Amino acid sequence: VAERELIDYIRQLAAGSSVPWLQVGIGDDAAVLDVPDGGRLVVTTDMVIEGVHFEPGTPPEQVGRKAVARAVSDLAAMAARPLCTVAAVNFGAADQVTAERMSRAIWEAADELSAPLVGGDVASGAGPGRAGCPVMAAVTALGLPGSSGVVLRSGAVPGDAVCVTGALGGSSLGRHLTFTPRIAEALALAERVELHAMIDLSDGLSTDALHVAEASGAGVSLRAGAVPVSRDAVALAERSGREPLWHALNDGEDYELLFCLSPAQAGELARAGVEGVPVSVIGEVIEDKQSWMVMADGRREPLTARGWEHLK
Amino acid sequence: VAERELIDYIRQLAAGSSVPWLQVGIGDDAAVLDVPDGGRLVVTTDMVIEGVHFEPGTPPEQVGRKAVARAVSDLAAMAARPLCTVAAVNFGAADQVTAERMSRAIWEAADELSAPLVGGDVASGAGPGRAGCPVMAAVTALGLPGSSGVVLRSGAVPGDAVCVTGALGGSSLGRHLTFTPRIAEALALAERVELHAMIDLSDGLSTDALHVAEASGAGVSLRAGAVPVSRDAVALAERSGREPLWHALNDGEDYELLFCLSPAQAGELARAGVEGVPVSVIGEVIEDKQSWMVMADGRREPLTARGWEHLK
Repeated sequence: VAERELIDYIRQLAAGSSVPWLQVGIGDDAAVLDVPDGGRLVVTTDMVIEGVHFEPGTPPEQVGRKAVARAVSDLAAMAARPLCTVAAVNFGAADQVTAERMSRAIWEAADELSAPLVGGDVASGAGPGRAGCPVMAAVTALGLPGSSGVVLRSGAVPGDAVCVTGALGGSSLGRHLTFTPRIAEALALAERVELHAMIDLSDGLSTDALHVAEASGAGVSLRAGAVPVSRDAVALAERSGREPLWHALNDGEDYELLFCLSPAQAGELARAGVEGVPVSVIGEVIEDKQSWMVMADGRREPLTARGWEHLK
Repeated sequence: VAERELIDYIRQLAAGSSVPWLQVGIGDDAAVLDVPDGGRLVVTTDMVIEGVHFEPGTPPEQVGRKAVARAVSDLAAMAARPLCTVAAVNFGAADQVTAERMSRAIWEAADELSAPLVGGDVASGAGPGRAGCPVMAAVTALGLPGSSGVVLRSGAVPGDAVCVTGALGGSSLGRHLTFTPRIAEALALAERVELHAMIDLSDGLSTDALHVAEASGAGVSLRAGAVPVSRDAVALAERSGREPLWHALNDGEDYELLFCLSPAQAGELARAGVEGVPVSVIGEVIEDKQSWMVMADGRREPLTARGWEHLK
């Protein structure tokens, strides 16, 4: 299945619909609902699949935690506060002890991330294809808007600075299993500055920056020299023969935040960081819908989506 | 994986926790939350897996619809009104057209069942095991309590009549793919009578009746001759060599409602039905925690769970 095309197909289905209480539907990191006779709610669902999001043989503790953390990271992207989670898990060909360890990890991660598990569904493999059935967990996370409301992908305006938290690339060396979603940082940012747009870096900086640009009807111009490259990206580059910057741009699964705001407020954050995490100003939002990467020598190259794609 | 044991393990994890706004957690058809500064919300998640819940080759329209209908049926079990759904789908080795047909079916079923799809996640197979990777959809449904509040599994009291809607058994002949969840019936029942306990019949009458009994700290005594046996159960019995009653008791996937209420109100419903659907009084709730099936000749046999089990 070509996921990009399938997502476009589903977005077309969604484009024709209008639900009065739905503020944000398919197309952002999470949906935003004004519950009739209730408050505003943020909802997102996310999968981890053996062989795609983790290798066979990964400790079930890490798999369970990642399943929850990925979904909660989508709440961070909206500057939402976690409320709870539900999980549907197919344990494939896993044995009982592995299934119990993974179940406990999901339970504990949900607790740790302030999104207690309130329900679930479990199954083991599929009849005929059981041996080839991957372990798979789908976690749905519910959240509440922070005190400053939700932040969408679509609010970036030309002239905005583009910022990221942390350092990027090389998460496949281990960080993709152990990251903590940037909930505290997102809530602190939303309180301290006026965020115009935000996304979590799951598909990779190049792809996710383009998601924000596209949703905002604008482009971005990123400075190669300003992208914070992680030590993992450097280590991975030694093995891969690519540039560390390539890994920072395209690896994905960083689960850092990318956000857009006024250059003045961005400058302040770049000096002070947020919740002890560094913030880097990596470029700006431009009117031109073509996005660019400006290299160290001043040349610019079209920014293309080389990361992964999945429906949000 | 032994699902029953795994569910017990997860319930033990859950038993130690206390979340102030969580009215009902793991152990009923759906969770019930009092959202801080919001209203009361009902949440449930449910999977369909190729080879378990549908056979390879099933039209993707039926698979997509079933995925949504199963989750919405859990809202019916709580007498909740559907609000919205999110879906996480692994299309396994399916081709693009099949994935699009299934996506459209999920979208349309959610719309038809008044639970519009507001978000999702899609993936295709798993790296190494792709050929053996089953198609799998996890749907989370959110609902709001009906005007009479939610109905749990746990409120049945000795002396209550045990009732079911419709006719049971043999759904594998096709009905498990085409059923409409009993939302309208559940809401009408909750308005017209005082329901003490309710569940949807997904695991099978024997198993689900025991779920209600166990949650209520009671037993049930069912009359074999009163169980409404479907034509499908009769047809299937001709092939299987079993009794039609066996199929009505144990097949599962009926997605009818089982509920407990005062005998007087039950008698009224048995005469009038609900929303055009027949209601049968099939037994009573007893103080004895051992549950029984009373046969046509007056003998009684212990009622055992022969249906399927999955975590709710």
